Amino acid sequence: MSNDWLNMVKWTDEGLVPAIAQDAQDGTILMVAWMNREALDMTAREGRAVYWSRSRRKLWRKGEESGHEQLVSEIRLDCDNDVVMLRVQQRGGIACHTGRRSCFFQRLEDGRWVTVEPVLKDPDAIYSKHPD
Amino acid sequence: MSNDWLNMVKWTDEGLVPAIAQDAQDGTILMVAWMNREALDMTAREGRAVYWSRSRRKLWRKGEESGHEQLVSEIRLDCDNDVVMLRVQQRGGIACHTGRRSCFFQRLEDGRWVTVEPVLKDPDAIYSKHPD
Repeated sequence: MSNDWLNMVKWTDEGLVPAIAQDAQDGTILMVAWMNREALDMTAREGRAVYWSRSRRKLWRKGEESGHEQLVSEIRLDCDNDVVMLRVQQRGGIACHTGRRSCFFQRLEDGRWVTVEPVLKDPDAIYSKHPD
Repeated sequence: MSNDWLNMVKWTDEGLVPAIAQDAQDGTILMVAWMNREALDMTAREGRAVYWSRSRRKLWRKGEESGHEQLVSEIRLDCDNDVVMLRVQQRGGIACHTGRRSCFFQRLEDGRWVTVEPVLKDPDAIYSKHPD
């Protein structure tokens, strides 16, 4: 199949694009991570989210350590072609490496960031090696 | 008031942070834009989204041209402190400079990006100068 759709994405100088994962059922924004060309291609082919870890400099299949895979029902691209959005079903209901459902658990209240989402599972019980 | 909350944000080397705007009512992801420190501070103070335009190199009060302001009900920060999320009420129901509700109107279908959201208003009728 043609790779025109991958060529349409405006990759950064490092060859990356930010990807937002949104819960397909209730719209909760779960996390933002980076993809390179291969990660986006694999995500589309496999229907499971694959990201690029900038810290570990490798492909990172979401859930490979935690079991918290993301089944992808839809892939979208924004008007500037420089942000990807995935609609996903989040296995285990936990996307964040802190054991919370969403990474966006800090809310600004009266000039400070307040944690407003509970830890659903102890990260030590989720990961044996690297958080994903 | 202390600016500790602004210092907690992990700004890029250019002093920016990406900000996702989400419809507060139904969870639709409307757009992603950049903020510098001043933009985020103003957004928090005024309760209206202010971004930083990288192309025009100036603060950009969303809706200043179009009237499509974003009233901000909540500001969140992710676990890495490097992505901001706003929950907003979108004036006019249009966030995208193409006249669509959301900037994420291209969906991947069988290896190509397909436009799946209608233009609600002709951009020429929205903007007299610069799109916002």
